[in-house]
Parts: sequence; C-alpha cells; structure tokens
Amino acid sequence: MRVVYHLPLSPFSRKVRLALKEKGLDFELRAERVWDRRPEFLHLNPAGQVPVLVEPDGKFFADSWAIVEYLDETYPDRRLIGFDPVSRAETRRLIAWFDQKFYAEVTLNLVFEKVMKRFFGLGNPDSTAIRVGKHNINAHLAYIADLSERRRWLAGDDFSLADITAASHLSCIDYLGDVPWDAHPRAKDWYVRVKSRPSFRPLLGDHVAGMPPPPHYADLDF
Amino acid sequence: MRVVYHLPLSPFSRKVRLALKEKGLDFELRAERVWDRRPEFLHLNPAGQVPVLVEPDGKFFADSWAIVEYLDETYPDRRLIGFDPVSRAETRRLIAWFDQKFYAEVTLNLVFEKVMKRFFGLGNPDSTAIRVGKHNINAHLAYIADLSERRRWLAGDDFSLADITAASHLSCIDYLGDVPWDAHPRAKDWYVRVKSRPSFRPLLGDHVAGMPPPPHYADLDF
Repeated sequence: MRVVYHLPLSPFSRKVRLALKEKGLDFELRAERVWDRRPEFLHLNPAGQVPVLVEPDGKFFADSWAIVEYLDETYPDRRLIGFDPVSRAETRRLIAWFDQKFYAEVTLNLVFEKVMKRFFGLGNPDSTAIRVGKHNINAHLAYIADLSERRRWLAGDDFSLADITAASHLSCIDYLGDVPWDAHPRAKDWYVRVKSRPSFRPLLGDHVAGMPPPPHYADLDF
Repeated sequence: MRVVYHLPLSPFSRKVRLALKEKGLDFELRAERVWDRRPEFLHLNPAGQVPVLVEPDGKFFADSWAIVEYLDETYPDRRLIGFDPVSRAETRRLIAWFDQKFYAEVTLNLVFEKVMKRFFGLGNPDSTAIRVGKHNINAHLAYIADLSERRRWLAGDDFSLADITAASHLSCIDYLGDVPWDAHPRAKDWYVRVKSRPSFRPLLGDHVAGMPPPPHYADLDF
C-alpha cells in the first residue's frame, strides 16, 4: 500500500494528498509528529519534514515539489502541471508563488504561530505576526481574483497544481477561520469550485486535537 | 538576445546563470534593483523578484525553479535534472533542500542581513542572525561531505541542478568570506570541482559596490 506521512495543517502535505486523489491513486495517511524526530522517519527524510511518500514497492520520496513532479511523470494519465513548456512554467511559477511567497507572508504568520509553535514547544503566538499574516492575505486573495477573472483556472484552461497549491495553503488558513472571504467574492468563487471537487473531501474531515475548525470549514456552501 | 535579470548575490539568479552556461545558451545579464519596484519589471514578474528570463522570442519566465525546469524541457541535449523519475526526484529533493532549508537557515541570516538589508533600507545587520547563520552552515557542509562520499556528485553519478543549487548558495556565502572551508575538507573538495567548471567562471567576476569579496573568492586553488 502507498503511504503518505503528513500533518493535518501542513499545506505541503495537503498538496500531495490532493494530487494523489486527483490522479485516482489510493494511499494510507499516517500523521507524523515531526517534532519527535523519529530516527525511522529521518531515514525517509533527513530534513525531518512532511510530506513523505512511500510507494507500494518501498521507494520513498521527500519534499512536496519533488513528490508531485514524480507523480506527474510516473502517472501521466491525468496531467496536473500543464501540457506544453510555457503552460508548465506558468503552473510552476504559481506553485512557487504560494509555496514560497504566500507561505512566508501568510502561512508562517498564522499556521506556524497559532498551531505549530505549540507542538514544537516554542512558546506563545506572536500577536504582531498574526496581525501581519491577516493583513498580507488580502493581496493574495486579490491576486487569485485577478487570475481567475482572466482564466478558467489559476494557471490557464486546466485545473492544475497551481490551484491545488493555492487551495492547500488557503484551506489551512480557513481551518483557523482567518480567510476574509466576504471581502473577496471572486476569490471565494474560485475556492468554492476547488472545494467542491471529490479530491478535496478528505481534507474537510481533518481535525487538530483541541482546535476544532469553524463551522463553515467543511461546508461546501459557506 | 536572451536576457536574465539578476542580482549578483542572489543564489536563485546564480542557479539560472549556471544552468544556461552548462547548456551552452548565451544570454545578456541585467542587474535589476528589485527594491525600486520598476513597473516594467513587475510586469515580467509580479512577485518583484529576480531571476527573470526573457527568451529571444520575447516570452518571459519568472521563478528560478520554473525557469530551470523550462530550460531542461526546452533544451534537453544537456540534461540537468536526471534521466529517470527516481533520480529526478532525488535531484529535486536536494534543490529544495538548498533553496528552502539552506536558504532559511544560512542564506537569509548572512546574505540578507549583511547585504540585502542595506539595499532595502531595512537597517543594520542583526548580529544574532549572523551568528546563527555561521553556526547553521556547518551541518549543511557536513551533509554535502556525506553525500559526496557516497556519490560522484550530490544527487548521483551525474553533475546536476543539485550541485548547481548548492554551489549557488555557497558561492554567495563565500563572497562574504563566511564559509569555514578548513573545517570541512570533503565539502571543499566537492566545491573545488564545481568551481573549476567553465560555467562557474562568470560568477567569480561578480562584484557588489562597496563590498569586495575576500581574495580566495575568485581563486580556483584556495
């Protein structure tokens, strides 16, 4: 059986979970308490981070970017990174936008402060960082609105890893109740379309102990 | 003519410059003062970052990962990301290691603090960050030594973007004189091999105004 080591509010793990589901590939999900630094897990990924993918033949892969590129090369029936070099470059530019820029400007300030700091024993959330994260998200929602006004999906005509990556990060912030959807109706329209896909359903059942999501989190008609 | 917008001590720009040279593709280099946020440049990359590649036909590409994947797909004669899905995944895992982990633990603490803060008008270097960066680099040099003990190049038998990415980051730190080469002779052996490649030569002539490199920076026999 294929295995994915993950954490519920890791956007990088969510990206791999969504990519596998979109490709119709089954897997078992295992939560990895990365802060325990288990030697067996560090053998799979010396960086000590989720996600890690273990294929049915025992081969293992670390880093979400390396994993999704591997999946797109190995299971190409359902392409998720575009069909020609130019659209592939645009898809990857947007993956990088959300995995790096959104991550640094929003995800770290909200998910790391509110959730991960506790698990890593790094003290209380920094209220300045949280304020900065809540401010920064607006520019990203405006960018999503702008892209989805000009295109069917974020990178072009096809649903792609650009949509998956953006939704992976946003869904973690949404779990915390920190996405100002009402101020960004066009970004919300795009998110409703992603959230309605069957691949997304398992994410809506995720739970972090002692930190339930707001009621609208799992609601497709929020 | 192909154009690369860059900054001399941007490891992500160095990665693209090295990849182009390894592929034998000519280009003109243009330094972009990203902190000026030129509208014409923001049109090429709304993230406002270097590198940006403009191809001879006018198509433009942003983000170093998207650019090098585009180059490897479009100019495949000289492959830089491995030949089969497993070795490609290993190459990408290591690219991510250096572009994310090394970048966050070392590059930001040294290059950002000592060089970029000045250009962005963000005040003086933080001496704690510099101390942390100088400490963190040792684990990465040990990892390079470990990999190059087991393999000819970092990702396997072939010189790849894993070597290019690691050397791009290290060469920026080396410009500042902050790589403890003497304590890591095996990592130094690997770096000497990369530094001796013709593709590397232009980087050794880079200069930042008011901040000359140490004498050993451009020396192949340091």
